Amino acid sequence: MYDVIVIGSGPAGYVAAERAGEHGKSALLIEKADNLGGVCLNSGCIPTKSMLFCAKTYDHAQHTEAFGVTVDGVKFDYPKVKTRTEGIQDTLRKGIEGLMKKNKVTVVKGDAEIIERGKVKVGTEVYEGANILICSGSRPFIPPIPGLNTSDKVVTNEGILKQTAMVDHLCVIGGGVIGTEFASVYAMAGKKVTVIEMLPQICGNMDSELSKTVQKGLEKKGVAFHLSAKVTGVDGSKISFTDKKGEAQSVTADLILCSTGRAVNTEGLGLEKLGIDFDRRGIKVNEKAQTNVPGIWAAGDVTGRWQLAHFASRQSTVAIHNMFSHEDICRENAVPAVVYTDPEIASVGLTEDGAKAKGIDFKTLKMPLTASGRYLAETDGERGVVKVVIGAKHKEVLGVHMVGPHVSEMIAAAIVMIETELRASDAGEIIFPHPTVCEVMHDAMFMA
Amino acid sequence: MYDVIVIGSGPAGYVAAERAGEHGKSALLIEKADNLGGVCLNSGCIPTKSMLFCAKTYDHAQHTEAFGVTVDGVKFDYPKVKTRTEGIQDTLRKGIEGLMKKNKVTVVKGDAEIIERGKVKVGTEVYEGANILICSGSRPFIPPIPGLNTSDKVVTNEGILKQTAMVDHLCVIGGGVIGTEFASVYAMAGKKVTVIEMLPQICGNMDSELSKTVQKGLEKKGVAFHLSAKVTGVDGSKISFTDKKGEAQSVTADLILCSTGRAVNTEGLGLEKLGIDFDRRGIKVNEKAQTNVPGIWAAGDVTGRWQLAHFASRQSTVAIHNMFSHEDICRENAVPAVVYTDPEIASVGLTEDGAKAKGIDFKTLKMPLTASGRYLAETDGERGVVKVVIGAKHKEVLGVHMVGPHVSEMIAAAIVMIETELRASDAGEIIFPHPTVCEVMHDAMFMA
Repeated sequence: MYDVIVIGSGPAGYVAAERAGEHGKSALLIEKADNLGGVCLNSGCIPTKSMLFCAKTYDHAQHTEAFGVTVDGVKFDYPKVKTRTEGIQDTLRKGIEGLMKKNKVTVVKGDAEIIERGKVKVGTEVYEGANILICSGSRPFIPPIPGLNTSDKVVTNEGILKQTAMVDHLCVIGGGVIGTEFASVYAMAGKKVTVIEMLPQICGNMDSELSKTVQKGLEKKGVAFHLSAKVTGVDGSKISFTDKKGEAQSVTADLILCSTGRAVNTEGLGLEKLGIDFDRRGIKVNEKAQTNVPGIWAAGDVTGRWQLAHFASRQSTVAIHNMFSHEDICRENAVPAVVYTDPEIASVGLTEDGAKAKGIDFKTLKMPLTASGRYLAETDGERGVVKVVIGAKHKEVLGVHMVGPHVSEMIAAAIVMIETELRASDAGEIIFPHPTVCEVMHDAMFMA
Repeated sequence: MYDVIVIGSGPAGYVAAERAGEHGKSALLIEKADNLGGVCLNSGCIPTKSMLFCAKTYDHAQHTEAFGVTVDGVKFDYPKVKTRTEGIQDTLRKGIEGLMKKNKVTVVKGDAEIIERGKVKVGTEVYEGANILICSGSRPFIPPIPGLNTSDKVVTNEGILKQTAMVDHLCVIGGGVIGTEFASVYAMAGKKVTVIEMLPQICGNMDSELSKTVQKGLEKKGVAFHLSAKVTGVDGSKISFTDKKGEAQSVTADLILCSTGRAVNTEGLGLEKLGIDFDRRGIKVNEKAQTNVPGIWAAGDVTGRWQLAHFASRQSTVAIHNMFSHEDICRENAVPAVVYTDPEIASVGLTEDGAKAKGIDFKTLKMPLTASGRYLAETDGERGVVKVVIGAKHKEVLGVHMVGPHVSEMIAAAIVMIETELRASDAGEIIFPHPTVCEVMHDAMFMA
């Protein structure tokens, strides 16, 4: 009898198992894939960030003149980039394996089925656990577009990472975060890229002005965007779509990335039999990560909430806290989101559109990053912005949204502000280091 | 009659004048130098950051192989770097001039002398002000070492920035922040550098482990360090010193940077006549930035406290708040400090040594940045660390100290935590974005 059986070893599952061990509890971790780490480590966050940085290095090496540096003959060695990326993945996998060992977690490979409360079957074995935590994650969602499922030119995030060479022309269907990041990798590596997106903007529900900045940056690198466009069919390497005017168009590419959202992994787990409340968007959980069935918990992408690795880790940690240590609540008002393009977008809390939708009386404080001396020193004047959404009455910080280099590392200050319910005027009293780019966030708040 | 007369237009002075204008008050800003902006803009933070980034670009362009990028013939064009730097300074100077105009600040050039309470003389003119705010700043301190003052090879931060070409061998006397940053510029640009420092570590009172990391990074780039060494004399281009064993040594360089601290600008202001309390370390002020003489305030380097631009701006803002709007206190428990080397050091709050000196019962939480997948993806495995100093009993965050690329932009989250009196365990509940380097700060705190 384990204290907890965790199904799935992504950022929700492995972190939960680690936390259980830290509390002196016994955990069984079940993973159906060959490797621990889930999508994040094996075909998501980590390999894309490695490839993005290599492509960025290549791109930057060609644009050093503004900084008084000249170079010749810049070359991009994709096989080396791939080897490097796999090496990083190996290191991190070993890290997770080490963490499991250190925390005395038993790891079992195979498909898990909850056969009754407290019992999980893997192959012919049945394991018993006082708690079951479902962290089965998500997979690419393939929309029912004729030809999309059958063309051998179509790949998802998994397939594109397996490519042994870069194609000359990549077509991305779905300009959300995943699509935009891969478009960036290929564009920065000097390849032709076409992005077809159904919505009128890329990067989903990010602030539209910031998305536009990233789009313009990618257009400068040669990416062609078709927004408010609908793919009607795929025939081998040919993608047919209607553009925003409703006119039929087509594009032929060497590889087609389908990045049109994620589907939750709820199949085969025995959810129906147990009466666990779920639908196609995920398993329903409360803010303690409990399902409607006592003793059965869920965390991460499968709960269909944020589908972000850091939210998954927090949500599964909350589950473990509630199981073994103290009452804990998974707040969702300060969940950050980042797009690792060049420039990056980083966002936390309410956007202007989000505040409007909620009927909140708000004000926006906005400043260009060029107000920062450091930004002027370290960029070639490209557009960067910080937008702070504050309550109109109490001036509390509701959301912060940034576009610019390294903003992914700056947003944490805003997260802490929102979590500590700081007013913009209080934030103005805090001393940010000079010269930094993040002081523009401070200066914007000072305007309140 | 002005509402406030501000003496000096650095980060304390110009910000104070701007704030006064924002409050609808009339301000007179007096500057003795040709340009507004003080040391920070004219011979400090801004030009050094511009040069550092250019040198870093050159250095990085030569080390791209790990990321699958090869380049040939990398060249560094110093005149272009200098022109670029001056351009950035011009832009920022115009920015300050614009801010003064927008806030209806009267700007006068010349030496200011306070002839009595409420009266300041510049040349033959006498101006009257309800308040006087002294922001006269600091200048390089030249220690009384034989030959140091007379050798034409010796420059300070001002002189080294005026160089029209880079010398082949730079000797830096004083390995504090300024010395280490210039050593970095020259070392990254491929020049020979020797640093002679009196203390057993570089970067003054930064955490010694972090200073050591920067030192090792610079040694890898060829910089020779002589720590616990004392310069005994300078003869032209020859510097004589005793090393840590007390043995006499010498080094000959093409240029000698004297960066041995700062002296406060208290001369000629009429402080003695008015009975303003000051000594060689600066003008004494309380936490509202008031001197002992009613109506006379002081802020920035001249108060001899932190001698950092961001502290100066905050301190002068506090003065303006207390003059015209509300009671405000200049807290000093969360003043960040950054060294813009490669890697950078960023620090806020108590170090371990600082906590020991204060007799505080503390614990240190420490993690390598290689725990971050992003760090692995974006670096070549060089050393990076985050150290969190927390109270042993309540686990409140007392200090955070980091070394690594871009940590200057990550420290803001820690500043907010200290300012909001967060416990490390509360910080563990905050969701940091994944994958970022700053999540290692979060993970370290989670250990509490």
